[in-house]
Amino acid sequence: MTSVNLLVVPSAGPGDLSAVDQLNDHGARLDDVLAIVGKTEGNGCVNDFSRELASNLWEDRLSEDAITVFSGGTEGVLAPHLNIFVRDPEPVPGHDRGLVIGVGQTRPLAVPEIGRPTQIQLVAQVVSEILTDLEVTADDVHLVLVKCPLLSSAQIAQAFSAGDTPVCTDTYQSMAHSRAASALGIAVALRETTQDVAEVALTGEDQVWSARASTSAGAELRSCHIMVLAVSRTAANPLRAMHGVMHDAIDLTSLHPMFSAIEEQGGTVRQVFVKAEADPSGAVRGLRHTMLTDSDINATRHARAAVGGLVAALKGDGAVYVSGGAEHQGPPGGGSITIVYEIPGSVTDA
Amino acid sequence: MTSVNLLVVPSAGPGDLSAVDQLNDHGARLDDVLAIVGKTEGNGCVNDFSRELASNLWEDRLSEDAITVFSGGTEGVLAPHLNIFVRDPEPVPGHDRGLVIGVGQTRPLAVPEIGRPTQIQLVAQVVSEILTDLEVTADDVHLVLVKCPLLSSAQIAQAFSAGDTPVCTDTYQSMAHSRAASALGIAVALRETTQDVAEVALTGEDQVWSARASTSAGAELRSCHIMVLAVSRTAANPLRAMHGVMHDAIDLTSLHPMFSAIEEQGGTVRQVFVKAEADPSGAVRGLRHTMLTDSDINATRHARAAVGGLVAALKGDGAVYVSGGAEHQGPPGGGSITIVYEIPGSVTDA
Amino acid sequence: MTSVNLLVVPSAGPGDLSAVDQLNDHGARLDDVLAIVGKTEGNGCVNDFSRELASNLWEDRLSEDAITVFSGGTEGVLAPHLNIFVRDPEPVPGHDRGLVIGVGQTRPLAVPEIGRPTQIQLVAQVVSEILTDLEVTADDVHLVLVKCPLLSSAQIAQAFSAGDTPVCTDTYQSMAHSRAASALGIAVALRETTQDVAEVALTGEDQVWSARASTSAGAELRSCHIMVLAVSRTAANPLRAMHGVMHDAIDLTSLHPMFSAIEEQGGTVRQVFVKAEADPSGAVRGLRHTMLTDSDINATRHARAAVGGLVAALKGDGAVYVSGGAEHQGPPGGGSITIVYEIPGSVTDA
Amino acid sequence: MTSVNLLVVPSAGPGDLSAVDQLNDHGARLDDVLAIVGKTEGNGCVNDFSRELASNLWEDRLSEDAITVFSGGTEGVLAPHLNIFVRDPEPVPGHDRGLVIGVGQTRPLAVPEIGRPTQIQLVAQVVSEILTDLEVTADDVHLVLVKCPLLSSAQIAQAFSAGDTPVCTDTYQSMAHSRAASALGIAVALRETTQDVAEVALTGEDQVWSARASTSAGAELRSCHIMVLAVSRTAANPLRAMHGVMHDAIDLTSLHPMFSAIEEQGGTVRQVFVKAEADPSGAVRGLRHTMLTDSDINATRHARAAVGGLVAALKGDGAVYVSGGAEHQGPPGGGSITIVYEIPGSVTDA
Repeated sequence: MTSVNLLVVPSAGPGDLSAVDQLNDHGARLDDVLAIVGKTEGNGCVNDFSRELASNLWEDRLSEDAITVFSGGTEGVLAPHLNIFVRDPEPVPGHDRGLVIGVGQTRPLAVPEIGRPTQIQLVAQVVSEILTDLEVTADDVHLVLVKCPLLSSAQIAQAFSAGDTPVCTDTYQSMAHSRAASALGIAVALRETTQDVAEVALTGEDQVWSARASTSAGAELRSCHIMVLAVSRTAANPLRAMHGVMHDAIDLTSLHPMFSAIEEQGGTVRQVFVKAEADPSGAVRGLRHTMLTDSDINATRHARAAVGGLVAALKGDGAVYVSGGAEHQGPPGGGSITIVYEIPGSVTDA
Repeated sequence: MTSVNLLVVPSAGPGDLSAVDQLNDHGARLDDVLAIVGKTEGNGCVNDFSRELASNLWEDRLSEDAITVFSGGTEGVLAPHLNIFVRDPEPVPGHDRGLVIGVGQTRPLAVPEIGRPTQIQLVAQVVSEILTDLEVTADDVHLVLVKCPLLSSAQIAQAFSAGDTPVCTDTYQSMAHSRAASALGIAVALRETTQDVAEVALTGEDQVWSARASTSAGAELRSCHIMVLAVSRTAANPLRAMHGVMHDAIDLTSLHPMFSAIEEQGGTVRQVFVKAEADPSGAVRGLRHTMLTDSDINATRHARAAVGGLVAALKGDGAVYVSGGAEHQGPPGGGSITIVYEIPGSVTDA
Repeated sequence: MTSVNLLVVPSAGPGDLSAVDQLNDHGARLDDVLAIVGKTEGNGCVNDFSRELASNLWEDRLSEDAITVFSGGTEGVLAPHLNIFVRDPEPVPGHDRGLVIGVGQTRPLAVPEIGRPTQIQLVAQVVSEILTDLEVTADDVHLVLVKCPLLSSAQIAQAFSAGDTPVCTDTYQSMAHSRAASALGIAVALRETTQDVAEVALTGEDQVWSARASTSAGAELRSCHIMVLAVSRTAANPLRAMHGVMHDAIDLTSLHPMFSAIEEQGGTVRQVFVKAEADPSGAVRGLRHTMLTDSDINATRHARAAVGGLVAALKGDGAVYVSGGAEHQGPPGGGSITIVYEIPGSVTDA
Repeated sequence: MTSVNLLVVPSAGPGDLSAVDQLNDHGARLDDVLAIVGKTEGNGCVNDFSRELASNLWEDRLSEDAITVFSGGTEGVLAPHLNIFVRDPEPVPGHDRGLVIGVGQTRPLAVPEIGRPTQIQLVAQVVSEILTDLEVTADDVHLVLVKCPLLSSAQIAQAFSAGDTPVCTDTYQSMAHSRAASALGIAVALRETTQDVAEVALTGEDQVWSARASTSAGAELRSCHIMVLAVSRTAANPLRAMHGVMHDAIDLTSLHPMFSAIEEQGGTVRQVFVKAEADPSGAVRGLRHTMLTDSDINATRHARAAVGGLVAALKGDGAVYVSGGAEHQGPPGGGSITIVYEIPGSVTDA
């Protein structure tokens, strides 16, 4: 039984553990936590130690099966916060379905495997196993989150010394390769593409993507941490989810109907998970952007700030999960969106 | 007669002069240009040479009375572009009013005057003179743009050598002081406050502000460049303007009705001028932001990226004028907004 | 007995604890560690979480009396590393003196005390107590290291809410104020100045400084961590120290004789502790530098990179302790230097 | 006759033209200027508009045959300045040789040619032609400076649209590819390697390099600007040059003898041209550096700051020409060095 409740807790810093008290206030224990998905305030790039600080502290406190996903970068109006998914098996009367999550990890990846077909396979396999465990089909799934490793310069040097060739020699770019492989693994597991097509896509073809994939890379882990979020009749709680896609970074036309549909149901937005990237063409709707030629601020930071400004305005606060670098997680220049929301007590269809 | 047309021209770089051809295509000449208000792609801070590059090139080509305002920083989805205000005296049938602008400059400011009461006075005086010349009242005005000087470390050192005390010793912070003094000068000229109150406000009291002020600072000039934008019965053209205020950086509630009102009139948004800043309280709607503790990216860059993401989505493209640092240009954490739009041919009231 | 040995251990990251193994290899235990003084690889500014990550991990492992000083910023050729001072009471034959250190902490500082006279007093008092405990005089001291708190935007906001006025409202500048107060506290304790003169100096007078002070600020602590390093006849070990001062950031003329003197004694440089800053005049030897007008990289990062390049070349490797922001820790634009070195076995005078 | 004098003029900003007055004070005219090689204060990366600003202003004023090379990035103690090479044919009594320079340009490069074998060929060809014109052999040459184009995101997009494949899709990395091809072109022209070997080296083999190559890339030009500096018996002036190589970024052992040799001759260092890079292995002398994992500051900025700190200390001031990114311009992690110096009046051998 993996029916869950979601606590969204603002954070005073990556080392802030006061969410433990909030858990207690909600009658939950640390052992009930299945996953913590947080936004921390580092640069979200290679040398972001806010992620390692937070994951160290929380992994010491959570049960062994729980996973953490810390995504760095709270540019602009984004607020550092934790999304805590807590096991909550008690059926809530009046609901015939509810939010469920399942979590897992791949084995640690060898350096030459990062950003390569093996990573696609490993992610796909774990996602498939989670689906089975959850007793849900791919159609029930609204989000698969993956936190995956990157390449440090020490690892790149070690790989060459060992006669291996890492996927690239630039540490920042290794994040993109790792995100891409994880996203394609998700698409394979959700039957949106095949392993063969995914492997071709990994070499640069960007037309293969999943609207339910959200992947981010970090130096603080060696395996891939994976969380699958679905709505299922195995649970009965007031949380629902929907997913969609932004076709570019200012795609209000896609966002607006999603928020409106929730409002019409009398629902309340609990969290928005969105991927953002600098359009690789160098332009948005025909107008040049400068995210890819700015040598002072990396493109992922620009993209998070801009999409974060829009999505925070729609949600009404900055505690939204905006993650940068959307390779195969939506069309080029766009990104996947998942909204988790709460509906009133009567039986409603998500 | 200062009835104007507005050309919004994307730019391929701060040194791109191809807008001259576009002017010609519209039957306009360089001598007809009253003001160029551009977004260039530097960091928008002290060492932003994109502004100096653009202003050098354009000031060589414009008439002596014309002014330039280049605002650096096209973070996120913002697109570098030029807003070219061209004298266009020919009355357009079917209109009983229209957009007018007037421009002017203060005398060069001495280093110790920057960010001090003298700057308030000088800006207020030139704005008042422009209002008189334009034959408009303060009520007709929807925007006063000011580009004003900042302090370089050489100027700070020279000031101390000469026995003077500059307003501060940090070059980036001098931009804030200069923007504040200019904004308060605008508020005085528009009779929104008095010189006495403005001088007190300059020392830190942030409750005095103008929703029609938009000021930015740069190292590329020593005087203040000033543009007043109004709607007046002395002109007859299809351009109109409205102004408002964002109460914080995600204030969709204030923005939405403005865009809706224009849509209801059958109007087309031509440009949005908006100021943005990191909320000085360190939080937006009670949630902590990290713009003021990020030692890698200055707060003004964060604020432009976030507000730019929202406003570009509403306009539908990234060629919006978002300027960072909104001291006395809207409530703390918010900023002034002016929308210039075009209405269909029949006589309509703006 | 506080005779110490010094281990300089390269670090693979702020979370790298492999130095524990190196300690064991040297026959030392974690309980013997008096102080860890490390360079970590964050930005060395406000949002540097590499410091917090390292200090969390090490403070969990060290004895309660030990202190940590983590200084962020390994720009350029600087190598992240730990300087581990280990209690080693066994007299080494052939030596009539040796390196000793003493450590302590002030009480936690209230937000309005940071960068103010109280901080001077508290630091001076703890330094004095350590001198007494160590049974050394001020003349024996070659270095006093202080790690002190800074102001976050949350603390600044809380202070104002409580009716208090923090020393400044800019988080990055609060680091300078805190470093300055700590440095002046050191100067008072070493009888290089008086509390009265120090308090005047704190308001901007920069002619008061100590060549033995090295202070840095961080968000990861609320008290001041203090380490006094001296050479004393109460110990007998082959480590010695000397101190001096760089008069500007390229002052090879001051550095060269120090390294030569050690070489002439047949000594080996074990570590160099040096402070660096961007000359506040905006120029070095009459030539303009751009560290104070660079809005992309903070001045302390520039200064560490440049002075680190020079000092690493002199030492022959990048594991040097270069810390940025040298307010009252050497003349304006310069900084304090302390070299710890090892001499051959015969009795020699340091 | 291309005997030259060298004026090293500090600059108050990239738009500072006061060097014209200094030229006049020296009895020289703008038409006598053969080359201006300047350090400007942008980020030295893709969006460095300080280079474009300076080159626009100076190219308007120099003769058509003159060239400009503006290298961005004055990190740390580096001082923005201009090295102005002025034609000065008058033989100086007592000298049997002297400094000569020759300049030229390749044709504009097509986007797919940048960083590819064609660029090697074009640079090699122009360098060879300059050698012939100068009547010097490769042995007489101490420095070949090249300023070459980079790829903007607009150009990358256009190339793909046209069915072409640019050398890479990352704008910052395109600078490295362009520098590499130019450096290899120099090595070919100086007979240090062959075109065939150079083309292999361009694909990643880093053992081919020239100690006399100094190349930098910029968005402000489409052709390669080339300057060859030699000492020749066709001239008679007191300027001499020597070249060498740093084997890593802290290679004082290589630098020291060069400065000493000049001092022993009674010479005066007039300028040092040095290339710097982050060691691609991720370590300097076995100790990890963090230049390649710092996602806030690009590696070339780190390298310039560090090597600049060392070289400025040796020269005694910050007006040194340190350029970042030393692909094939010295061994990996090191860089080429050329010192121009002035000797006393008697006939001396350089």
